[in-house]
Amino acid sequence: MKKIVVINGPNLNLLGSREPEIYGSESYDRLCGRIKSRAQELGVEVEFFQSNSEGGLIDRLHQCIGGADGVILNAGAYTHTSYALRDAVASIGIPVVEVHISNIYAREEFRHKSVIAPVCRGQISGFGAASYLLALEALVGMNG
Amino acid sequence: MKKIVVINGPNLNLLGSREPEIYGSESYDRLCGRIKSRAQELGVEVEFFQSNSEGGLIDRLHQCIGGADGVILNAGAYTHTSYALRDAVASIGIPVVEVHISNIYAREEFRHKSVIAPVCRGQISGFGAASYLLALEALVGMNG
Amino acid sequence: MKKIVVINGPNLNLLGSREPEIYGSESYDRLCGRIKSRAQELGVEVEFFQSNSEGGLIDRLHQCIGGADGVILNAGAYTHTSYALRDAVASIGIPVVEVHISNIYAREEFRHKSVIAPVCRGQISGFGAASYLLALEALVGMNG
Amino acid sequence: MKKIVVINGPNLNLLGSREPEIYGSESYDRLCGRIKSRAQELGVEVEFFQSNSEGGLIDRLHQCIGGADGVILNAGAYTHTSYALRDAVASIGIPVVEVHISNIYAREEFRHKSVIAPVCRGQISGFGAASYLLALEALVGMNG
Amino acid sequence: MKKIVVINGPNLNLLGSREPEIYGSESYDRLCGRIKSRAQELGVEVEFFQSNSEGGLIDRLHQCIGGADGVILNAGAYTHTSYALRDAVASIGIPVVEVHISNIYAREEFRHKSVIAPVCRGQISGFGAASYLLALEALVGMNG
Amino acid sequence: MKKIVVINGPNLNLLGSREPEIYGSESYDRLCGRIKSRAQELGVEVEFFQSNSEGGLIDRLHQCIGGADGVILNAGAYTHTSYALRDAVASIGIPVVEVHISNIYAREEFRHKSVIAPVCRGQISGFGAASYLLALEALVGMNG
Amino acid sequence: MKKIVVINGPNLNLLGSREPEIYGSESYDRLCGRIKSRAQELGVEVEFFQSNSEGGLIDRLHQCIGGADGVILNAGAYTHTSYALRDAVASIGIPVVEVHISNIYAREEFRHKSVIAPVCRGQISGFGAASYLLALEALVGMNG
Amino acid sequence: MKKIVVINGPNLNLLGSREPEIYGSESYDRLCGRIKSRAQELGVEVEFFQSNSEGGLIDRLHQCIGGADGVILNAGAYTHTSYALRDAVASIGIPVVEVHISNIYAREEFRHKSVIAPVCRGQISGFGAASYLLALEALVGMNG
Amino acid sequence: MKKIVVINGPNLNLLGSREPEIYGSESYDRLCGRIKSRAQELGVEVEFFQSNSEGGLIDRLHQCIGGADGVILNAGAYTHTSYALRDAVASIGIPVVEVHISNIYAREEFRHKSVIAPVCRGQISGFGAASYLLALEALVGMNG
Amino acid sequence: MKKIVVINGPNLNLLGSREPEIYGSESYDRLCGRIKSRAQELGVEVEFFQSNSEGGLIDRLHQCIGGADGVILNAGAYTHTSYALRDAVASIGIPVVEVHISNIYAREEFRHKSVIAPVCRGQISGFGAASYLLALEALVGMNG
Amino acid sequence: MKKIVVINGPNLNLLGSREPEIYGSESYDRLCGRIKSRAQELGVEVEFFQSNSEGGLIDRLHQCIGGADGVILNAGAYTHTSYALRDAVASIGIPVVEVHISNIYAREEFRHKSVIAPVCRGQISGFGAASYLLALEALVGMNG
Amino acid sequence: MKKIVVINGPNLNLLGSREPEIYGSESYDRLCGRIKSRAQELGVEVEFFQSNSEGGLIDRLHQCIGGADGVILNAGAYTHTSYALRDAVASIGIPVVEVHISNIYAREEFRHKSVIAPVCRGQISGFGAASYLLALEALVGMNG
Repeated sequence: MKKIVVINGPNLNLLGSREPEIYGSESYDRLCGRIKSRAQELGVEVEFFQSNSEGGLIDRLHQCIGGADGVILNAGAYTHTSYALRDAVASIGIPVVEVHISNIYAREEFRHKSVIAPVCRGQISGFGAASYLLALEALVGMNG
Repeated sequence: MKKIVVINGPNLNLLGSREPEIYGSESYDRLCGRIKSRAQELGVEVEFFQSNSEGGLIDRLHQCIGGADGVILNAGAYTHTSYALRDAVASIGIPVVEVHISNIYAREEFRHKSVIAPVCRGQISGFGAASYLLALEALVGMNG
Repeated sequence: MKKIVVINGPNLNLLGSREPEIYGSESYDRLCGRIKSRAQELGVEVEFFQSNSEGGLIDRLHQCIGGADGVILNAGAYTHTSYALRDAVASIGIPVVEVHISNIYAREEFRHKSVIAPVCRGQISGFGAASYLLALEALVGMNG
Repeated sequence: MKKIVVINGPNLNLLGSREPEIYGSESYDRLCGRIKSRAQELGVEVEFFQSNSEGGLIDRLHQCIGGADGVILNAGAYTHTSYALRDAVASIGIPVVEVHISNIYAREEFRHKSVIAPVCRGQISGFGAASYLLALEALVGMNG
Repeated sequence: MKKIVVINGPNLNLLGSREPEIYGSESYDRLCGRIKSRAQELGVEVEFFQSNSEGGLIDRLHQCIGGADGVILNAGAYTHTSYALRDAVASIGIPVVEVHISNIYAREEFRHKSVIAPVCRGQISGFGAASYLLALEALVGMNG
Repeated sequence: MKKIVVINGPNLNLLGSREPEIYGSESYDRLCGRIKSRAQELGVEVEFFQSNSEGGLIDRLHQCIGGADGVILNAGAYTHTSYALRDAVASIGIPVVEVHISNIYAREEFRHKSVIAPVCRGQISGFGAASYLLALEALVGMNG
Repeated sequence: MKKIVVINGPNLNLLGSREPEIYGSESYDRLCGRIKSRAQELGVEVEFFQSNSEGGLIDRLHQCIGGADGVILNAGAYTHTSYALRDAVASIGIPVVEVHISNIYAREEFRHKSVIAPVCRGQISGFGAASYLLALEALVGMNG
Repeated sequence: MKKIVVINGPNLNLLGSREPEIYGSESYDRLCGRIKSRAQELGVEVEFFQSNSEGGLIDRLHQCIGGADGVILNAGAYTHTSYALRDAVASIGIPVVEVHISNIYAREEFRHKSVIAPVCRGQISGFGAASYLLALEALVGMNG
Repeated sequence: MKKIVVINGPNLNLLGSREPEIYGSESYDRLCGRIKSRAQELGVEVEFFQSNSEGGLIDRLHQCIGGADGVILNAGAYTHTSYALRDAVASIGIPVVEVHISNIYAREEFRHKSVIAPVCRGQISGFGAASYLLALEALVGMNG
Repeated sequence: MKKIVVINGPNLNLLGSREPEIYGSESYDRLCGRIKSRAQELGVEVEFFQSNSEGGLIDRLHQCIGGADGVILNAGAYTHTSYALRDAVASIGIPVVEVHISNIYAREEFRHKSVIAPVCRGQISGFGAASYLLALEALVGMNG
Repeated sequence: MKKIVVINGPNLNLLGSREPEIYGSESYDRLCGRIKSRAQELGVEVEFFQSNSEGGLIDRLHQCIGGADGVILNAGAYTHTSYALRDAVASIGIPVVEVHISNIYAREEFRHKSVIAPVCRGQISGFGAASYLLALEALVGMNG
Repeated sequence: MKKIVVINGPNLNLLGSREPEIYGSESYDRLCGRIKSRAQELGVEVEFFQSNSEGGLIDRLHQCIGGADGVILNAGAYTHTSYALRDAVASIGIPVVEVHISNIYAREEFRHKSVIAPVCRGQISGFGAASYLLALEALVGMNG
């Protein structure tokens, strides 16, 4: 693992202001900062991307081909319906770790199913912003 | 209520030419004109947005934060599947009224379920273009 | 539209005392008063009927034949199961608007389905007592 | 069989005016007349009852105990949901024949299931007013 | 109605010996005899066909084109699954009445659904052998 | 607990004669007598109401407001479908205990679900007439 | 009834400390004490058993053969899935009453179904610790 | 047919490199080349469009109004969920043929349902790149 | 591809007279003629078989072993239920293309599922008689 | 047991050549030979019948009345859908043992349900050709 | 096959006394005796284990590793729900044959599904105690 | 976090030998060793428990009250069915992290649902033995 791309889906740009009792009060920018620090400690480069557009997320996943060694993906609500995103994950041939800030299994029924999970390496859900940090370690750990 | 944004989703730009036996023969522009007139009578400012892109609709909803007092949302066919849009509605902290031109309950089975309805203030369905005008009044009436 | 009948179903007689956090604290009588005022402004006559009996509601709908130009119907919990009421609505050949005080889509699963909706002109749900006033306007607006 | 009671449920009082393309243009009274004539030919007494009230229909079924030898029941839309009516049929110990004017299996999905059928002797559906006449013969034929 | 064909499906050849507590003790031949007598009284010609083969039943239905004015069909267990038979019934342009000896709604769950019913004129179920006689009258009655 | 109302739904007036192998051979009147005796022992007043009408049962529940301290409700077959009755129970603010004479879970599938249970205090099912006596004790026991 | 065994399933040993807002604050030992007192008043012997093991509960039920006249069973969460427990109840030929402290129908969906109920004599649910006392009376009452 | 637009949805830009055992090893560009050659043979103009964005695909479909005589649509994974795309197809009034490279019915369950199929003229699935060529012929053949 | 067998299932012998608004007015014989002409152009031999019998269709598929290079199969309504036919297709080791005259996805729900599709090479549906011609080309094209 | 008929359904004639990794490489004829040898050892007569036709299988089952003491039935794919075959098994009053060569529960979902099993004496599945031999013993063992 | 372990699950220790109309009147010990005799005839060693505990059954299955050549497993009611048992069967790498005394497909719906069957070699169901003997032969037969 | 208990459910004792292509070839003991090392680095005490018994796992969870600061739970196949285990997790008031070695969402359908997840803090699935190490960090990280 040399370079890891962190891809965030719909509404995650509102982090900190959006339903803080669920998603915490840390802003998207501070979350990125925290992930960056940890990446430096672990000796990997990290890049961030956020989009509310399903197509935009797919485009970014495609760009990872030849340009990234691992992906951390929080697909937001697209997690539960986007087979197109799933196909993109399956197509790029790079390990993808699915993360969720909240415990998606403790929320509404429709959030209990991830259509992306079967093609990801693993899933980390429910640890707040720490979910990203654990995913980072998981990806780095895959190297050796 | 000072400013209300009217957001229309996929295929509503074709209004007037698209299946007029269902959606009526009034064009999208004329519909906007009619809503504008009524808004003036009611003393509120009104702004329009249409997009065929789920991400585009979410982006526009986010921009309402701090920039609008109410939203009228006809999410077209995204109504029935877009949990991302639902999350956006829930995130912005502004009253949203869901409208439909046709009576969605008198049409195909898949149109009977709105995944957005649970996080909107209310739903108005089946009155043709008048659905928007009633939604306008509903929003204005929330003021006092 | 000259005469509109407002028909309320089971438990709506308890309005104001029944679960006020859901249905508001306005009594059934005051609600009727408010609807009456608005009807006068709009130049239409309005009549009220409430019954906890499915058969009673069907009988009243039948009496509308030749005696009313429009109906506002809040069928309460019969909304979700009464195909007999649905048949009555379909039989009388008069426009019927379905209303709900609460947002039925934000409540228990069983309230998400209306078996009456497919044969009504439209549905207005979630605006409290204002749902009736909007329905009144919708019906009057059908005239021209 | 000496005396047969013909019980009609919700909306059947509107026969002739209600959706004549489905239910025919013969009025409820003329239907009763036709049944009466046939009953006389067959040498049995016949009595009629119609109610839009589920409870009213149950009450009338109960009165058949000791007062009727057979029942012809068109429960209208209660056919599809009323387990209370079903229990009443099962309770009275008198042969009941279920009839339907239209072919309920050629209509909306919800009309395809009769919760009453399992406790009736038989079901006759789809022959218009003749369904009642066939039921009359079926009941009379049970005698010998 | 000049000529009516009575078509019986799988296992009905065993009538009389097969589970007599459900299907009665009258043999297939005697049933045919009884139907023939009634046909003579009603002034129509009647012809019988029985097969355990789905294809054989479809072939016989096809032969009715131009050769019969009405069909009485007891499709046995094919009733619940044979869309091919349903298509045959819909294709021949001749009124078909579906009959069942037992009350199919009082038996196993899988017998509660008839895939043929929606394209038949009507259904008569539960009157034993008399179901055929009632069907005969129903068909004859369609003439005048 | 000073006054308890015992409300019985559809077909319970036939107690003793209706399917005695399920419901026992004790008549409705004798059941009431037995309950009355026990009430006297427990020092509470008891009142009885039976109706086959859903609306009638709802009306009686409403009258309990301010007029009763507890309700014992056997809603008969309405138990399984009547959301209107459920709403009435939830509306009156008085403890309601649901009872059933037979073990509803040992009977037909459709009797396994009570839509009323979630808003009752508790449910007692399967002890014959003793179900009512246990409910009486349960209600009285809530006092001290 | 001379001897009654009270069998409690998984997690009921934590009574009093476990989610007291649902299960009350009375400890398992005090509950047993209360049941014992009531048993003495009613003149029956009572014995207690608690296990978190499905197999342990089955073993104990088997030991009741020839050693008990009645069983009170709170199977905890095994209620909803254990067909093995159900078979044990059906096998021992001794009346078993199912009890629940909380109203299982007012909680999560998965708690609404008891696979044990169809083979128990009756079910008492929702009265807190009093559910056991009512069950005791129900069992004693079966004697005469 | 003068001009036909070939629209490809999400991940089809990766053709050739993406899961070649399913989609073949021919690149998107070579596929377009092959289709172009065949179009020339058939004497029709052909234009290509690919997007990973649902909104982008809808926009392109709209632009076909007045600008194309036929459309070949491989909606990729949007095939299975996008009612918005379906509405777009239904709105443009131009014959659309749905194609799939792989046999979607021989793959995962979620790929077995196309929500677009009901509003397309026809569907061709499973012939690899040849699916597009067959679709081209089908569209051209509609002309004469 | 040297020899291709075209197998048609139930009711397809009625082509031209059967519901022509769905299946077109061309007779089965003329359809065969058209396919034959095209086969000659493409330089392959073609043979036809039609049967209303599921077993007959399976027998004919078996005879293709060693006697045909490809099969075009329109299984009619057996498409939706016949796992036996599916097994036959899977057993013979010859490429089979499934065709349908009408767009099966635009018709009744039960026609939306093909149990044969997963074991066929591909499926062509909705192009009228041209579906067979396209299938012919698809099979021929498999050769090179 | 004196005479046992072994009935094999659709595609079993292809045994040995059809998907040998599932069904083994032994031909149908050799299988019959093996069964015959074992029958001789066990002192019973054995007869074989194979048909791809559902009707043919039913006819053969009927002929067993009075002509066989036991039946071994491998209904192939008809196992999962043929209620007509089930009725035939139930009608003939002779013990029938259901066998399957492969473990049907380890294969596709649709093979997990046998509609014939409930009316057979028992089922033996998954032992290859030995399934038939075990069934033979099972039937013979029923004698003493 | 040298050594075979016969593992019986919950309630099978009650064999003979438990619902003898379903399970027969032979006791567990006599059943073991009969199996032992047959094993001796077949020249294999046999060992028995019975437990009502799911964990106990899993432990015993684990002990078979290196200690048994085959397993006969009647998991009782755990058959229908225990994925843990299924995992144990799949883990031990020894052929396991699933047996049932009664025909589980002729009983309650919940007994129709075995979650263990897909990982067993085969299943034998419905032959009473003989099911075990047939399983023994099946296992022994796997050797040669 | 001072002390963390690692609880492993059914079949995890076989780690290393059981289906190594899914669970890896590391034995249970070596896994424990690796976890221990990491715990030491992180400065927390760690204790291990494995049982194949549902009741044993519940007992161990109960013992954590007052004796542990965090739990790592791999409930094996009980994950998918054990509401009793779920209740235990919810009862003990200590943070529990659910882990899985394999990606449960990429395996059989029945493994996609965890009934324990809603009451755990979070879930980590798919990283092999590293899932435990990540869980350890997650728990330690909750401290500060």
